[in-house]
Amino acid sequence: MALTPYQQLEQEFRRLHAFRSAASILRWDSAVMMPRGSSDLRGEQLAALETESHALLTSPRVSRLLTRAEANSAGLEDWQTANVREMRREREHAIATPQNLVSRLAKATSRAEIKWIEAKQKSDFAIFAPHLEEVVNLLRDKAGLLGKALNLDPYDALVDEFSPGMTSAGIDAIFTTLGRRLPGLIQEVIELQARRPPLEIAGRYAPSKQRALALEVMKAVGFPFERGRLDESEHPFTGGVPGDLRITTRFSATDPLTGLMGVLHETGHAMYDIGLPEAWRGQPVGRDRGMALQESQSLLLEMLIGRSRPFLRYLAPLLTKAFGVSGPEWEVENVYRLLIRVRRSLIRVDADEVTYPVHIVLRYELENEILKGELRVKDLPEAWNSRINDRLGVRPANDAEGCLQDVHWAVGSFGYFPSYAMGAVIAGQLYESLRADRPELDDELAAGQFAGLFDWLRQNVHAAGATVSMADLIRNATGKPLSAAAWLRYVESKYLEE
Amino acid sequence: MALTPYQQLEQEFRRLHAFRSAASILRWDSAVMMPRGSSDLRGEQLAALETESHALLTSPRVSRLLTRAEANSAGLEDWQTANVREMRREREHAIATPQNLVSRLAKATSRAEIKWIEAKQKSDFAIFAPHLEEVVNLLRDKAGLLGKALNLDPYDALVDEFSPGMTSAGIDAIFTTLGRRLPGLIQEVIELQARRPPLEIAGRYAPSKQRALALEVMKAVGFPFERGRLDESEHPFTGGVPGDLRITTRFSATDPLTGLMGVLHETGHAMYDIGLPEAWRGQPVGRDRGMALQESQSLLLEMLIGRSRPFLRYLAPLLTKAFGVSGPEWEVENVYRLLIRVRRSLIRVDADEVTYPVHIVLRYELENEILKGELRVKDLPEAWNSRINDRLGVRPANDAEGCLQDVHWAVGSFGYFPSYAMGAVIAGQLYESLRADRPELDDELAAGQFAGLFDWLRQNVHAAGATVSMADLIRNATGKPLSAAAWLRYVESKYLEE
Repeated sequence: MALTPYQQLEQEFRRLHAFRSAASILRWDSAVMMPRGSSDLRGEQLAALETESHALLTSPRVSRLLTRAEANSAGLEDWQTANVREMRREREHAIATPQNLVSRLAKATSRAEIKWIEAKQKSDFAIFAPHLEEVVNLLRDKAGLLGKALNLDPYDALVDEFSPGMTSAGIDAIFTTLGRRLPGLIQEVIELQARRPPLEIAGRYAPSKQRALALEVMKAVGFPFERGRLDESEHPFTGGVPGDLRITTRFSATDPLTGLMGVLHETGHAMYDIGLPEAWRGQPVGRDRGMALQESQSLLLEMLIGRSRPFLRYLAPLLTKAFGVSGPEWEVENVYRLLIRVRRSLIRVDADEVTYPVHIVLRYELENEILKGELRVKDLPEAWNSRINDRLGVRPANDAEGCLQDVHWAVGSFGYFPSYAMGAVIAGQLYESLRADRPELDDELAAGQFAGLFDWLRQNVHAAGATVSMADLIRNATGKPLSAAAWLRYVESKYLEE
Repeated sequence: MALTPYQQLEQEFRRLHAFRSAASILRWDSAVMMPRGSSDLRGEQLAALETESHALLTSPRVSRLLTRAEANSAGLEDWQTANVREMRREREHAIATPQNLVSRLAKATSRAEIKWIEAKQKSDFAIFAPHLEEVVNLLRDKAGLLGKALNLDPYDALVDEFSPGMTSAGIDAIFTTLGRRLPGLIQEVIELQARRPPLEIAGRYAPSKQRALALEVMKAVGFPFERGRLDESEHPFTGGVPGDLRITTRFSATDPLTGLMGVLHETGHAMYDIGLPEAWRGQPVGRDRGMALQESQSLLLEMLIGRSRPFLRYLAPLLTKAFGVSGPEWEVENVYRLLIRVRRSLIRVDADEVTYPVHIVLRYELENEILKGELRVKDLPEAWNSRINDRLGVRPANDAEGCLQDVHWAVGSFGYFPSYAMGAVIAGQLYESLRADRPELDDELAAGQFAGLFDWLRQNVHAAGATVSMADLIRNATGKPLSAAAWLRYVESKYLEE
C-alpha cells in the first residue's frame, strides 16, 4: 500500500530527527568526553549533519509533500494536523535564511567563540569586539530575512527560533512589571535577610559523595537512568534527546548545595523531555514548546521546589547521610536560608531567584539596541557597566565580570536571554495552579514523593508537546493568560516572610 | 575558480568521512556510555547515517565525477591517483549489493545478534540456528553479487571487504603451513613449559590502579591523549577515528596483566591509525590497508613487544610502583613465563599466541563450508566440537564455549576471522625485518623508549595508507612476499627456548 503524503512526511522528519539526535549526542560528547584536540574533526561531523538536516528540510520533496498533506488534511487526527503545521513552521525557518548566510554565520560564530574565550580570560573586550561586530552584522541580515518570511519584527524572528510564538510585546509587558517592582523588592529582601543571616556551612565535600547524593535525588524525582545519565562538565546542561538524556553538573568541593541545585535544574529540563508524548517522538509536534517553557520546568524544580522547606525536609537527612554532617547549620531552616539568600551580584549564572531577572532585562535591552544599531558594539562595555550599576548597585571591575561573562552573543544566540526570565514567570504561574490543584504537594515533597508533582506537570504541560502555542498552553494549564502577577506573589511571600 | 572533478570527489568523500566518523563515535558511545534503554534510538541514528553514506557512494554525481577524474588523471599526483582507485573500489563494493538486500541483512543480523546473546547465555544453539540460517542465506546472495562485480569467488568477495586484496589462495598457503607445524609445536611447548612452571600472582589489584598504570604505559608508547582516550567496556575495542581515537579495555580485579595486555593490543591499532598520513585524512587512500594489517599492528605491540623480556624489564618497576608488589613472582623472568604460557583451551579470545591460529583455522574452514552449503547450520555444533577436539584435544562441554562463543557470524562478519591469524603472521614477518634494521630495539624497549619502534612502523607500514596493496606493502617493508616462515621462526625461538 502506498504511503500518504502525510506518512511520507513523518518518515522524512523521523530521518531529520535521527540526524539531529545524533548531533545532540555528539555535542554532549564534545563537552563531556571528547579529547581536547579533536574539536576540528567534531566540527566537520556536526557541520555535515547540520547541512544534511537543512537540505532535508528545504528539499523540493518535503515542499511538495507538505503542500499535498495540507490540501488533504481531512483524514488527519488533530495531533497530525498540528504536526503538519509544525513541519511547515520548521521549513519556513529553514528556507528563510540562504545556505550561504547560514554557513557564513556558522564560521563567524565559531571564530567569535574562540575570541570570546580569549577575551574573557584576558578580560579584554577589544579582542572580541570586531568578531561580535561581524556576528551582529550577519544576524541583522538573518533577522531581516526571517522576519520578512514570518511576518515578524527582526528581533522577534530571532526570539521565535528559541521560543515559538513569544514576541517583544509579550516580553515587554512582563519585563515592565518586573522592572517596576524588583528594585524595591530586592532592597526590602536584603534588609530583611540581614536581620537573620544563616550560619555558613564550611568544609570539604568529596565530589564522589555529592554525585552519589545527586543520583539518589534524581532517582527519587523519577529520572529514568535506563534512558539517561549524569556526568560532569564545565557548564551544566541537558543534552541528548528524549530516549537518551544526558544531563551534566559541576560539583564544588567546598559547596555541597550548588552542584545539587544544578542537578535539579537540569533534571527539570529532562523531566519535561521525558514527559513529552512518546507516540510523537521524532516528530515536530512531539517537541517541547520552546526554551521559555523549558526554563519554566527547570526553574520550577530547582527554585520553587528545590529551594523550599518541604523539599529540604526530605533532603536534610540525605545530607547527613551523604556527608556525615550535623549541627545547627544543617537544620532545615538554616539550609533554607542559605539557599534563598539574595545578593546584589555581577554574575548571572550565580545570581539568586530575585535579582536574576534584572540580569536578563539588562541583556534583553542591550541585544535589542545592538541589533537595531542604536548601540554600537564598541560602546557595549560602558553601557553594560553603567546600567548594571543603576539597576543593582554593583559595577564590574573588568569586562570578564561584565559584558564578557556569557557565551550567548558570541555564538549568535540573540533572542535567547528573555527565555530565562520568562521561564521564571511561567514557573510562578504554573506553581500557583499546581498548589491550588494539589493541596497535598508539600507533604508529598517532604516525604520525597514526586509522582504527584510530575503527574500534574505531565498532564498540564508536557503532554501538549507542540500541539498548541506557548500562550495557549499556559492558559490551558492555569486558566489565565501569562502575567507576572503569580510569580511576584510567590517571590513576595517567600522572600518577605517575617 | 571551478573545482576539478577530482577536487569535487575529495569534497564528497570528506563528507562521507564525516558521516562515518560520527557513526564511529556513536558506536563507541553505545558500548561505553549509552544508557541501556537507548539502543532503539541509537539504531535509528546509525541507520540514518549508514543510509546517507550509502546514498552518497552510489549517487550518480559520484559516478560521473569518478569517470571524469579517471579520464583526466594526467595532472594528479600518485597518491591522488591511488585515491581515485580506492574511491572506485568503495563505490564498486557499495553498488554491488542492492539497497534492499543491505537493509534485509541489517535487520537479520540485528535480530540474530539478540538471539545469539540469548542462545549463548542459555547455551542453546537451537535458539540461534534459524537466525544464523537467515543471515547465511542473505550473505550467500551478497557474496555472489559482490563476487560477480569484483570478479572474485564469493567467499573472497566477503574477505575483500575486511582485508582488501586478501584471498583464499593466499590464506590457504599460510594456513596449510601453520596446520602442518602447529600441532607438533604446541605439544613440544607444553611439555617444555611443564618442566618450569611460573609462580602464580595471586591477589587483588584495584582497577583504578590498573587504569593508572595503563595510562602511564600508553603515554610512554606515544598514544596522543589530546586526541584520544581510554575507557572500559565489556569487549575491548578501538573505536573513533584518527584524530579522535577511543580505545577500551576490561580490568580484572584478580589479574593485573590481562587488562594491560589488552590495552597494548588496542594501542597497537590506535598507533596504526595515528601513523596514517595526516594530509590524506578523510580520504579513502588515507585509510589503513585492511583488518589483517590492523591486526598485525595490535599483535606486534601486544604479543611480540609486550610479551618480551625487554619490555618487561621496563614494566617490572612500574608494576611494583602501581601495586606495591615484590617477590620472586614479580621478577621479569617469572612475569615473562606467565605471559607466554601455552595451553590447550576452548575460548579464542583467551588463547595464547601459539594455539590462537588453530582457533582461527577452524573458523575459516567452517565458515567456508557453511557459505558453500557443504556444512548445514544445524550441524555446526557437532562439526565444531569434533574438530576442536581433533586439533587441540579439548572438547566444549556446551555450545557457549563452542560455536556460540564469538559474535562474528551473528553480525554477518563472514570472511573476517582469517584477518586475525594473517595479522599474526604479518606481525612476525615485520618484526624480523624491524629487528634486523634496528639492533638497538631491545635496549630501547627496556628503557621504555618506543619512538624507534614507531619510527620504523610509520615509515614501513603506516605511511603507505592505502596507496599500495597489502601484498606490496608487506613486500616493500620486508623485502619478501608474505609467508609463515618468519612467524614460525619467531614462535619457535621464543617458545622452544631451553
